[in-house]
Amino acid sequence: MNTSDTIVTKRATVPTIESLLFTPHPVLDHGFVTVVDYMGDDAAICQAARVSYGKGTRSVSDNRNLINYLMRHRHTSPFEMCVLKLHLKMPLFVARQWVRHRMASINEYSARYSVLDKEFYVPEEGVICTQSANNKQGRGEQISPKKAREVAERLAREAQQSYHTYEQFLGEEYSLARELARINLPLSMYTQFYWKIDLHNLFHFLTLRCEEHAQYEIREYAHVILRIVESWVPLSFAAFKDYRLNAVTFSQTMMGVLRRILAGENVQQKNSGLTKREWEEFQASLSTSPHQ
Amino acid sequence: MNTSDTIVTKRATVPTIESLLFTPHPVLDHGFVTVVDYMGDDAAICQAARVSYGKGTRSVSDNRNLINYLMRHRHTSPFEMCVLKLHLKMPLFVARQWVRHRMASINEYSARYSVLDKEFYVPEEGVICTQSANNKQGRGEQISPKKAREVAERLAREAQQSYHTYEQFLGEEYSLARELARINLPLSMYTQFYWKIDLHNLFHFLTLRCEEHAQYEIREYAHVILRIVESWVPLSFAAFKDYRLNAVTFSQTMMGVLRRILAGENVQQKNSGLTKREWEEFQASLSTSPHQ
Amino acid sequence: MNTSDTIVTKRATVPTIESLLFTPHPVLDHGFVTVVDYMGDDAAICQAARVSYGKGTRSVSDNRNLINYLMRHRHTSPFEMCVLKLHLKMPLFVARQWVRHRMASINEYSARYSVLDKEFYVPEEGVICTQSANNKQGRGEQISPKKAREVAERLAREAQQSYHTYEQFLGEEYSLARELARINLPLSMYTQFYWKIDLHNLFHFLTLRCEEHAQYEIREYAHVILRIVESWVPLSFAAFKDYRLNAVTFSQTMMGVLRRILAGENVQQKNSGLTKREWEEFQASLSTSPHQ
Amino acid sequence: MNTSDTIVTKRATVPTIESLLFTPHPVLDHGFVTVVDYMGDDAAICQAARVSYGKGTRSVSDNRNLINYLMRHRHTSPFEMCVLKLHLKMPLFVARQWVRHRMASINEYSARYSVLDKEFYVPEEGVICTQSANNKQGRGEQISPKKAREVAERLAREAQQSYHTYEQFLGEEYSLARELARINLPLSMYTQFYWKIDLHNLFHFLTLRCEEHAQYEIREYAHVILRIVESWVPLSFAAFKDYRLNAVTFSQTMMGVLRRILAGENVQQKNSGLTKREWEEFQASLSTSPHQ
Repeated sequence: MNTSDTIVTKRATVPTIESLLFTPHPVLDHGFVTVVDYMGDDAAICQAARVSYGKGTRSVSDNRNLINYLMRHRHTSPFEMCVLKLHLKMPLFVARQWVRHRMASINEYSARYSVLDKEFYVPEEGVICTQSANNKQGRGEQISPKKAREVAERLAREAQQSYHTYEQFLGEEYSLARELARINLPLSMYTQFYWKIDLHNLFHFLTLRCEEHAQYEIREYAHVILRIVESWVPLSFAAFKDYRLNAVTFSQTMMGVLRRILAGENVQQKNSGLTKREWEEFQASLSTSPHQ
Repeated sequence: MNTSDTIVTKRATVPTIESLLFTPHPVLDHGFVTVVDYMGDDAAICQAARVSYGKGTRSVSDNRNLINYLMRHRHTSPFEMCVLKLHLKMPLFVARQWVRHRMASINEYSARYSVLDKEFYVPEEGVICTQSANNKQGRGEQISPKKAREVAERLAREAQQSYHTYEQFLGEEYSLARELARINLPLSMYTQFYWKIDLHNLFHFLTLRCEEHAQYEIREYAHVILRIVESWVPLSFAAFKDYRLNAVTFSQTMMGVLRRILAGENVQQKNSGLTKREWEEFQASLSTSPHQ
Repeated sequence: MNTSDTIVTKRATVPTIESLLFTPHPVLDHGFVTVVDYMGDDAAICQAARVSYGKGTRSVSDNRNLINYLMRHRHTSPFEMCVLKLHLKMPLFVARQWVRHRMASINEYSARYSVLDKEFYVPEEGVICTQSANNKQGRGEQISPKKAREVAERLAREAQQSYHTYEQFLGEEYSLARELARINLPLSMYTQFYWKIDLHNLFHFLTLRCEEHAQYEIREYAHVILRIVESWVPLSFAAFKDYRLNAVTFSQTMMGVLRRILAGENVQQKNSGLTKREWEEFQASLSTSPHQ
Repeated sequence: MNTSDTIVTKRATVPTIESLLFTPHPVLDHGFVTVVDYMGDDAAICQAARVSYGKGTRSVSDNRNLINYLMRHRHTSPFEMCVLKLHLKMPLFVARQWVRHRMASINEYSARYSVLDKEFYVPEEGVICTQSANNKQGRGEQISPKKAREVAERLAREAQQSYHTYEQFLGEEYSLARELARINLPLSMYTQFYWKIDLHNLFHFLTLRCEEHAQYEIREYAHVILRIVESWVPLSFAAFKDYRLNAVTFSQTMMGVLRRILAGENVQQKNSGLTKREWEEFQASLSTSPHQ
């Protein structure tokens, strides 16, 4: 681990994230998110933007206004100037979703080089749910406590059995190559990796992974990172929340409907030009409040 | 599946890869590599290079010379102008290595949306080996046929058990959400995905994944792709083989040693400035022949 | 140049874009956009999506619905499966904006290898405008025809003078290295390059470069490409237009205001929580119609 | 500009690069390289690698050995964990080469938002050379001092004239939009930008831009950055120098020739299987010494 000795620097430094450095935030039953390093702050974003706009930035003289302007007009490159490095521990099936974000750097624990620890994810009974009826990729209602307990116990027991086989394969009797011994381990096994990403791409990650359609387990990680980002770059985070995370996008057709409604017309799905599904989404956007 | 009706086009077209389109090449026990689409050919690479060099390409008038020149001098951008699209089926632990190549596009089968097929990888007995003594990430010698059979049978049996649990979780009794039911499935399960990559990045992939330190299972896929590339862009492939795949890189220190040897000096490891490991690699490079 | 001989293929082929292949579309005074190659079609996007969603795609059985669904929910990866390759000729100052899009492949004419042609951009008098008063990066009103003519003539004359110096530097008297002789050529000089980009990134490019804040000259190119994309992947293009190009995004605060308005409240800027600039943008979104 | 107040941090900190922060290193006649921020150090690379290899790294216990091992075996991902942020000022024709490196973040001064300063590059007389006879992209011999002076004076004079026109266009008489007024400015004009890149990609940049075929002006910047990297991550820099920058790659055919030579055979170009050009490159590699 990094030495936590305090040392002086001339670099942009943020006390509120300094206090989080090297301290694991627990997630799920064995996972964590640990801030290992960061580069830049809200002022660094503005500094980069001001190189671009030169005297053209005079009108947005303070940092908050400039950051809001950048976020609103999707001037995303200044946000690339900040970088976050995390140490993450998560189940393999979550890690498989994670690595789909390609604009990031990863160093993952290798089960070819080393033996995996005996740690696997068993969901809490409260999040063991049935297949959603209307959402093809998601969960529906909680199953009965009794059945939830059965599922959890069976997941735990069978993961332990897999690990037992893994140990036997690695043991003296077989001395099997690690890269082979591990192939029957389950997707619930924990892995860990270093992950480095710039703030622009992190915002994109958070938009997708805080979303209600993301799997519960990855959302748990995303929400912890959300809080880290808030304490690191509070102005950018506020702008992100307002203009991205809780923003709503209406299609051209929806905008047409909206204008008719505002003009006093009584628009129904049938005469809206929207499909049933779009109409529902449209209605939901107009009534619901943000949740983050 | 794509219609295989033959249709006319004015695009760059390569008959030798046309004949491979939509036909799965089997890999391992249940995997495959299928060419779904391609863009460009050897001539397209030269065409792009000639836009860059304009009249400056006059001296390398024919395509073979130009491609060799580009490969030798690492002018890599013209190779980005060709694209290959594959449909791949492979075990999850291979797919996890695969997606580390970020400069590619992927659409993978989602176990949140759909039920996984009952297919998992069981290695042939001939490739079930012990942990290598000198290579931390690799396999050593074959284990005894009897033990190999035990390993294979146990892998098969336990994967089947995992799948049985998966089916029960999905069944009427639990109706568990797919995204949860799958978490105890093993890394030997097969997944499938579309993969689109440009030729420059594909060459990089092949350099790393044909290498003897790559895991046997991913090498099996890489070797099939090697043959596909050969039939698609034969001139580029020949250049790649000569200047990249079977090329050898000597460090500055190694070059010093080489020059001393060529000058007649009897250099030993002790007075070479190379570590023992480097000296071995150096000696191996000078004696071995290429294998591809 | 590519042979335009017609040949048979089993690949996804689109007659409407085939007919555009190798034919330059003129842009500005000397520029062009030429389709050199393409990979995939609307069906190929659906095919890739169906690999992901497996049986989960049953409910969106036809291609149009599936593509609309993908676009609406920002499932962007299937759009990466289509690729367009263009030959472009444009002024250097436009090319400098163009290359900021990093997720693309480029082979540009090199003024180190070859002599640049005597072609430079002189704007038509109708687009010679004053600095915009309220838009820091844009044009305001047309200047008088007389002054516009003066500007155009001076731009043409001085570019010719620069080129004359360039020729003298390259001539026998100096035989100056090409890489040096070109350094005083103006940003209005034409360059050309091959550009290969996938459809997802192309949509992102078009969103930014068709926008009214983009410089007029790059918009002229973007609009030509818009028409090419429409003839290549009509279903994706229609979805892009509805859900992206002409879509409107409202911030969390704007959504709050919208809900209050719909509830019958008379909201003014002062009690809206929006800045003056945001309020204007909000009002404009509610009243204006799409322009593409 | 960033406050240079010294503040405490728990992050990885390198005193030797701290002392370079915010101080411009002059390059060419008006350019500079300024270190604005950095993330990570040699130890951070090892730390990331050790996450990957776990107990598998025991054998390379010290950082120097581990870094050498990573560099030699092209395990490049740990080097992505370090990041450098520079403020750069350079002529436009150099910036055009610079931005071809896509795996970096840029915020460039915008001539649409702001007025460019009156600064342009005029080469020193000693580097004003004729076109190289054997290198299509490079310079040959110095031209006579008298002619060099003529070239330099003409470049300076004509750049000044262009700038004069620019000022008139922007002035009261025309009030031309900035985005138009600048189109006849020469490629020798200075621009400036923030540039953020990870160490792996920076090494790639340096390999290409320190190379003798790179244009003299960009090499001047690359050499300054080389020294910055040396003071930041000395172990990685040493490994980079030995295994990458001054390393030599021999093709499969060259390796065959080398083996024959070492076996005592008298190989000539004619019976080598190498082209004349390759033979020359091969001979040069065996005789020359490194230059960095």
